[in-house]
Amino acid sequence: MQTRESCLQADSLDPLARLKPLFSLPPGVIYLDGNSLGAMPKAAHARSTQVIEQEWGVGLIRSWNTAHWFDLPSRLGNKLGRLIGAGDDEVVVTDTTSLNLFKSLAAALRLQGHAHPNRRIIVSERDNFPTDLYMIQGMIDLLQQGYELRLVDQPAQLERAIDADVAVLLLSHVNYRTGYMHDMAAVTAMAHRHAVLTIWDLAHSVGAVPVDLAGAQADFAVGCTYKYLNGGPGAPAFIWVAPRHRDQFWQPLSGWWGHSRPFDMAVEYQPADGIRRYLCGTQPVVSMALVECGLDIALDADMAQVREKSLALTDLFIALVEERCQGHPLTLATPRDHRVRGSHVSFSHPQGYAVMQALIARGVIGDYREPNVLRFGITPLYLGFADVWDAVEILKDILDTGSWNQPAFHQRTAVT
Amino acid sequence: MQTRESCLQADSLDPLARLKPLFSLPPGVIYLDGNSLGAMPKAAHARSTQVIEQEWGVGLIRSWNTAHWFDLPSRLGNKLGRLIGAGDDEVVVTDTTSLNLFKSLAAALRLQGHAHPNRRIIVSERDNFPTDLYMIQGMIDLLQQGYELRLVDQPAQLERAIDADVAVLLLSHVNYRTGYMHDMAAVTAMAHRHAVLTIWDLAHSVGAVPVDLAGAQADFAVGCTYKYLNGGPGAPAFIWVAPRHRDQFWQPLSGWWGHSRPFDMAVEYQPADGIRRYLCGTQPVVSMALVECGLDIALDADMAQVREKSLALTDLFIALVEERCQGHPLTLATPRDHRVRGSHVSFSHPQGYAVMQALIARGVIGDYREPNVLRFGITPLYLGFADVWDAVEILKDILDTGSWNQPAFHQRTAVT
Repeated sequence: MQTRESCLQADSLDPLARLKPLFSLPPGVIYLDGNSLGAMPKAAHARSTQVIEQEWGVGLIRSWNTAHWFDLPSRLGNKLGRLIGAGDDEVVVTDTTSLNLFKSLAAALRLQGHAHPNRRIIVSERDNFPTDLYMIQGMIDLLQQGYELRLVDQPAQLERAIDADVAVLLLSHVNYRTGYMHDMAAVTAMAHRHAVLTIWDLAHSVGAVPVDLAGAQADFAVGCTYKYLNGGPGAPAFIWVAPRHRDQFWQPLSGWWGHSRPFDMAVEYQPADGIRRYLCGTQPVVSMALVECGLDIALDADMAQVREKSLALTDLFIALVEERCQGHPLTLATPRDHRVRGSHVSFSHPQGYAVMQALIARGVIGDYREPNVLRFGITPLYLGFADVWDAVEILKDILDTGSWNQPAFHQRTAVT
Repeated sequence: MQTRESCLQADSLDPLARLKPLFSLPPGVIYLDGNSLGAMPKAAHARSTQVIEQEWGVGLIRSWNTAHWFDLPSRLGNKLGRLIGAGDDEVVVTDTTSLNLFKSLAAALRLQGHAHPNRRIIVSERDNFPTDLYMIQGMIDLLQQGYELRLVDQPAQLERAIDADVAVLLLSHVNYRTGYMHDMAAVTAMAHRHAVLTIWDLAHSVGAVPVDLAGAQADFAVGCTYKYLNGGPGAPAFIWVAPRHRDQFWQPLSGWWGHSRPFDMAVEYQPADGIRRYLCGTQPVVSMALVECGLDIALDADMAQVREKSLALTDLFIALVEERCQGHPLTLATPRDHRVRGSHVSFSHPQGYAVMQALIARGVIGDYREPNVLRFGITPLYLGFADVWDAVEILKDILDTGSWNQPAFHQRTAVT
């Protein structure tokens, strides 16, 4: 039986508690939406001042060399690679997750076009994050080569959906809504038994759960830096390509940044060796530079400790909600099994939208996802056990008093 | 005959001189590379502090609504549209120029695929900026539908290259190397006589020369905000689609930001009405927000005055170089004819690279472009007549003394 005192005791023993002071969080807020937009590292403002006032304002064009702007995608990519089991020159930070999905899907389809030219099926989950599905749909419509999207309703149906017609399996490692986490190594091995290539979207896993792309023998991966990596709003995304595939194909978003010698101004595209061929155009330097502030904190944390704390906090959150809020129509959408749980917890509630607005008004910031899902991101780098206790007490109060049932809490905003 | 005094006199009469104090420029520098990376508006640092410390740090996820992050691409696009003869809901600021070229090329080919399904030629210039050519090559290679790139060596050859096999004509309005400016209305009319769709890359014209996309009856345009618009290093680019084409096709980089109701989390992509269907993924908010600082200055300037001053400054620069540096092997690469001149001036010199490095070491920052081209961006918002005089005097001194001929000035850097 947990108490607030036992939570404070757990906080006092937490080896990651030393990292919380590196983040700026507003007073009166318990932030449970770091899986949507991570909190601000305190170093971010000084870094932006340096980039804007010194590198841009004084260095001007020279900063592409002197401030190493040109190397940012690779340098940050190499740092990020250490969080996902990737080696140097396997990751670049660039563009958006959606665009990196397009590049990896184009590459995977091209590789399969050589090996298995008749395969025309791309498999994903109906509950995958929509942009993953939309990018597949855009590619299919563009190519006009008879590709089809095959969607499964449950992870357990995946194996049945994989057959000799399938070219590519594109999955989110951790589901954005439920928090279900695939066994990357097992699913990849299953796909490979059928000669299917895999693309993993790590948006909801990088920085939150251990990822070992090399160990899983994965093929392609993409992901996001503005969630658990705390890179800043809309910060550039990343792409990883297994070295065995990397130099076999140039991806079709073949802008000058991916050229082997961009400043030769050659007429013919010639892809760079290595992962830089997955670059396209000039990158947003200020947003890109800020990614490093969050990355450096993540690299300072022991990922095994992060995972241990994440499971402890999500266990605590589930246990407290079920104990303290019993009698209210909350249904757990997140797996109880540690092996398949990511780092956020979702409960559905028939009035989920209004309940979340009431929580936010009380300073407990989670988010809402259709349909009816209250989503709570559990970020071990800056959340503690007492935070979880306090959040659940506020949820309990809102449900017990029915204070969610106000007109203002039912008004939909553009971004929910 | 110009003198430094006559230049100072011209500066004292310059109606745009009031804008120079809005920019931060380092002491001792004459900045002639604003066509590569524009100078820093002094407002940029305060804006970044607001976005990082307040909107991100305090507002956190709520800022997508409360700080209107979600609307940034449209709001900035509408502002930018006023500089290029576009109406509201015709422009979004997003992604990179290269990616926006891909979207517009996909849309143009699809439109032609309905109207003229046998046309398989895309025309451009051999001297177009390489990324434009590389993106075409990437698209051709991806589609595998028999498309071909037809390149012309001179603008005068364009008309001969346009025939009933041509689907799309993709040109830079102002050439990145020579500063040659196409007559957009005349070229578009010529293309349309042959039922060819046009894509204009405005990277070297927006903010520097008058652009009237509606008046030219153009089809598609893309461009860059980090050059003459002073949006910051690698700031997001823009795309414009003529209203008559805009809603006829959804472009294949169909990420969730282009969806009509992104937060419904629907499985099927349904494009937004209007120009937002040309969005793809989540945008880099900090870099994006800074674009507004530069845009606001550009909108405060009278574009006719900008053009008048640009021509006066480029005339002066050409006249002074030819007068003061005569006897040195400098060859003008930029048109003398005002009707076809953009806002930068290029001279070739057999030792162009070393001469430019010597200039930069003396605080005259232009840039070098293969082969042998010294490129000088003339930015009327923050350059004056005496700046041009002083720059040419330093060039003259470097050439007269041969001080460019030092080993350090021959060492190539990653980005030249």
